[in-house]
Amino acid sequence: MSCPLVTLLLGGARSGKSRYAESLVTAEAPPWTYIATAEPFDNEMKARIEAHKARRTAGWRSFEAPRGLAQTLQRAPSLQPLLIDCLTLWLSNILLGDLDLEAQIAALEEALAKRQASTVLVANEVGLGIVPENALARRFRDEAGWLNQRLAAKAGRVIFMVAGMPMIVKDRQQ
Amino acid sequence: MSCPLVTLLLGGARSGKSRYAESLVTAEAPPWTYIATAEPFDNEMKARIEAHKARRTAGWRSFEAPRGLAQTLQRAPSLQPLLIDCLTLWLSNILLGDLDLEAQIAALEEALAKRQASTVLVANEVGLGIVPENALARRFRDEAGWLNQRLAAKAGRVIFMVAGMPMIVKDRQQ
Amino acid sequence: MSCPLVTLLLGGARSGKSRYAESLVTAEAPPWTYIATAEPFDNEMKARIEAHKARRTAGWRSFEAPRGLAQTLQRAPSLQPLLIDCLTLWLSNILLGDLDLEAQIAALEEALAKRQASTVLVANEVGLGIVPENALARRFRDEAGWLNQRLAAKAGRVIFMVAGMPMIVKDRQQ
Repeated sequence: MSCPLVTLLLGGARSGKSRYAESLVTAEAPPWTYIATAEPFDNEMKARIEAHKARRTAGWRSFEAPRGLAQTLQRAPSLQPLLIDCLTLWLSNILLGDLDLEAQIAALEEALAKRQASTVLVANEVGLGIVPENALARRFRDEAGWLNQRLAAKAGRVIFMVAGMPMIVKDRQQ
Repeated sequence: MSCPLVTLLLGGARSGKSRYAESLVTAEAPPWTYIATAEPFDNEMKARIEAHKARRTAGWRSFEAPRGLAQTLQRAPSLQPLLIDCLTLWLSNILLGDLDLEAQIAALEEALAKRQASTVLVANEVGLGIVPENALARRFRDEAGWLNQRLAAKAGRVIFMVAGMPMIVKDRQQ
Repeated sequence: MSCPLVTLLLGGARSGKSRYAESLVTAEAPPWTYIATAEPFDNEMKARIEAHKARRTAGWRSFEAPRGLAQTLQRAPSLQPLLIDCLTLWLSNILLGDLDLEAQIAALEEALAKRQASTVLVANEVGLGIVPENALARRFRDEAGWLNQRLAAKAGRVIFMVAGMPMIVKDRQQ
């Protein structure tokens, strides 16, 4: 099961992932679908969500899916360009909610395989620092890396962002 | 306002940024200008500064600009190759000194746009690990990432260093 | 002293380094040699070692070298493809064991230069996060970065892994 229309956009914190992902989607004709996975549980997160919203103008239809991502994705218009921002926050919500991660990922992959238009997934690369002392952080780091590998293997395109600039890791969409 | 003569050299700790940056500058005819932003406030930093100095031989003229970077840059010879090492330490000095970051960055950009010779900027990529627990570290990580994005957008060339080897992210100097 | 047959495979945690390294080695004719540097001192590490072992099928001959890596490498068949997984764990063992790091690295380089078949070295990139607060972690990060630079300079090929996908950093084997 591959997902040729899927682009996985990886990068560190403040590497310009969201902005570049939006530019990929809006390069196509509207309407565009946006699925946000963030939950505004503190002021830092609220401010970030508002900044992202302010950047998205008319033409976007937005959904919030902090957990039920596969279901939301299946209800979204399959023939319109779509952006999920971001998978790593969603993973964090799944782990904190103690949900069945494998079932959630399998459902997400199934929904992605049904997409019939460009689908951009934003995810964080979190494994390039020193091993965290905290066991939960280590587990999160492991699961985030495995999720990225799993989706990268199926995606038609994988991009690594450096300072707002895309580096092409894999491209079968050309 | 773009800075076609500017090369932004990004990389992690001990990725060989300084050495490679020096090689880019010294590939051109001397004299070369070096602007250091480090302050020798502890022994670790003193040792690092000395090691960097020992590597730079005749042909270099050095300035220290832990904070007033734009002013130092404007006083440096505009027609000679120049290296700033590094922007991330400078950012840290600005944040710790509680100076007006936006004004400082705007002045730096203005000085960079006036350069008429090769200008290499070294900066750290610090956003590829787990989210820091410390709020100040998170803010520093955010500001460092935004500064890198902002300069990368204007630079003629962006290079990502991996184990002493350059990966070209953007090149409009060719 | 260069090591044209050596491939240095760098990447973060859970970036698919081991799996890709194994695929490079097993693309050649067996038998293959595997040198593990991990010590199973806790359950997390034991589980990881077992998962790696389960993946390697017939055709592999395995050695364990948590410290005496150069000696083990010299005893391994020089004409057969070989994988060392991983150098960063070995570095950690050398530092924790308070052994002479420079002598160990020099012996490793000498053994690598004698190799007459494909030799894949796996290593972690750990320098792309925030500066660690812990001085020992900073030293480990420095030494890991320097070791990677030193081996990258001599290797015929350097690859940076992102989500299980290879990005070519240097290639003199083509």
